[in-house]
Amino acid sequence: MTPTRLEVGSGEAASTVWLGAGTLESAGSLLVSPSGRYLVFSAPSAGEAAGAVRRALDGRILLDASVDDREAEKTLAGVERLVDAALAAGVRRDDAIVAVGGGVVSDLVGFAAAILLRGVAWNAVPTTTGAMADAAVGGKTGVDHSRGKNLIGAFHAPRAILVDPRALGGLPERDYRAGLVEAFKAAWIDDAALADRAERELPALLSRDEGALLELLTGSVRVKASLVTEDPQEKRGRRRLLNFGHTLGHAFEAAGSYRDLKHGEAVAWGIAAALEVSCDRAGLPLAEAERIRLVLARLGPFPEPVRDPRRLSGYVSLDKKGTSAGLAAVLLEAVGRAKVEVVPPQVWLEAAERARI
Amino acid sequence: MTPTRLEVGSGEAASTVWLGAGTLESAGSLLVSPSGRYLVFSAPSAGEAAGAVRRALDGRILLDASVDDREAEKTLAGVERLVDAALAAGVRRDDAIVAVGGGVVSDLVGFAAAILLRGVAWNAVPTTTGAMADAAVGGKTGVDHSRGKNLIGAFHAPRAILVDPRALGGLPERDYRAGLVEAFKAAWIDDAALADRAERELPALLSRDEGALLELLTGSVRVKASLVTEDPQEKRGRRRLLNFGHTLGHAFEAAGSYRDLKHGEAVAWGIAAALEVSCDRAGLPLAEAERIRLVLARLGPFPEPVRDPRRLSGYVSLDKKGTSAGLAAVLLEAVGRAKVEVVPPQVWLEAAERARI
Repeated sequence: MTPTRLEVGSGEAASTVWLGAGTLESAGSLLVSPSGRYLVFSAPSAGEAAGAVRRALDGRILLDASVDDREAEKTLAGVERLVDAALAAGVRRDDAIVAVGGGVVSDLVGFAAAILLRGVAWNAVPTTTGAMADAAVGGKTGVDHSRGKNLIGAFHAPRAILVDPRALGGLPERDYRAGLVEAFKAAWIDDAALADRAERELPALLSRDEGALLELLTGSVRVKASLVTEDPQEKRGRRRLLNFGHTLGHAFEAAGSYRDLKHGEAVAWGIAAALEVSCDRAGLPLAEAERIRLVLARLGPFPEPVRDPRRLSGYVSLDKKGTSAGLAAVLLEAVGRAKVEVVPPQVWLEAAERARI
Repeated sequence: MTPTRLEVGSGEAASTVWLGAGTLESAGSLLVSPSGRYLVFSAPSAGEAAGAVRRALDGRILLDASVDDREAEKTLAGVERLVDAALAAGVRRDDAIVAVGGGVVSDLVGFAAAILLRGVAWNAVPTTTGAMADAAVGGKTGVDHSRGKNLIGAFHAPRAILVDPRALGGLPERDYRAGLVEAFKAAWIDDAALADRAERELPALLSRDEGALLELLTGSVRVKASLVTEDPQEKRGRRRLLNFGHTLGHAFEAAGSYRDLKHGEAVAWGIAAALEVSCDRAGLPLAEAERIRLVLARLGPFPEPVRDPRRLSGYVSLDKKGTSAGLAAVLLEAVGRAKVEVVPPQVWLEAAERARI
């Protein structure tokens, strides 16, 4: 099967995304390294996909290292470990890194690539639905800080991203479903037709049908590509729409110590809260909010988040999306249409208490 | 006095350099912050200049912190300390940082700005001749690694750079002279007329004459601006010429544990070695090499570097300027004309033994 090719960003920040079942087999020709040499960092859980990458790059691998893919490893110290390993292996400025794993791996390894020798090329081979739909695409890389998630990082786009449903291998059911939240999110903010189709295909998606999954992933990457290309560094443009559900999502995740909720689950709750605010302030019809909640319910059930405003408020106000003027947040006007509006933190904290799925 | 204004780079990577005696007094209108708020990080040795910045930004300073300006602090852990302080102060994406100090401060603080919230704006107020001529200009930021200098970093250009000879305050004589090496370097690689004038003005320069110093600094920033604008990320273009003297310079510095030689002194020795290689391989006339050595001698004397090839070789081969094809190094063809050539590490190690000032 010929893979679908999508371009994200432009110039220095350009990525090529290849989507298709079996794409991994062609990794040898699709991954990009200026020198032809690769450093492969893979998560322990990415066994099958890492094996395919290894076979495809045979003879061109300078370093083949494992990377801890727990959120607790997403720290500057974790990045330093990767940098140490790459320098010990003799990495050069024109070599390239390959990150094989979920969102933690692409955030962490991508950030190491961003700061190693002031930036070396990298490629992403996502092995979770969340990383395929979102984390690996768009060039955001980074690590967490005790004060909040992704507070340290860089924009550093991977040269190539291989999205192959077969790389999902033994992805646990809970991770599979949580990751789909990010794919649906893209549809809800910018592509009503995609949302309609994916909703109809939900049973096939939940049974991991390759065709249905590829259609949703391709649609969501297409949305992301268009928003990221318009506004690569999220200055003030439409890229911010991709943060739908993330203002509270990050706070829910942090309040649960990045342990109680998967990222996608926290975003699901963040979306549920954003639906409340959107109905109140952006004219989102109640019926459309209900429709989205129904999809979230079928992707769940998700563990209950921390809703106590006293525990959430510190995380909400520290969100990167905050500026000195207030908290720029994403509201939905209708399925397929979103906007950015400055909303007081207090409104979000109240919505966190009301949110339901 | 109206300051001279030079533009370096373009687009996202654009910096405005203001050069003039008394420029610091106008810091309030020349420094740039999207939100109007500033976080000031200053070296203990930058007392006078930091005071001027504080007065100029009165009422707009969110954080006023001291930063350790020893090379040993230029580590990821050192960056993390700055990031912690900025987050604790409540930094927002649209705030700006001001780095007041020498090259260590602009490298370290600039890199913190690069990775904080995936990049906040920053400004440089250099307080050493080295930082004025080189370190603060051009957007290279970063920290050291046990395997070599500046192996971790990012390209993140300051919005504004204020070059005011009055900021040199109590700069020790040895630092003052070492920093001039970088200013002369710019002339030697790209501006023969500037080199001629600066050579004639050497007595005035050594007595810290403001006019002579500003002329040399303005000329060297102009050279740097033109090379950086052509090739902002040092891909394969002429920006590399600025590394003249740095291939061995970094190795000398590392072999002396960043303690025995100042950066500019190590670069002086690196230039002396590059003169040997340039006479052998790039047709540099012996008389021109001698002329440059004479200037270096008058800027010195500099402490003797480590010349043992066994101690230098690891540092030479790990230099960022290395690619998998070899070590791209800068050779001088004549005063004012340089070129990049791949030279085997062995040739550099031999030149290190022969170099003389």
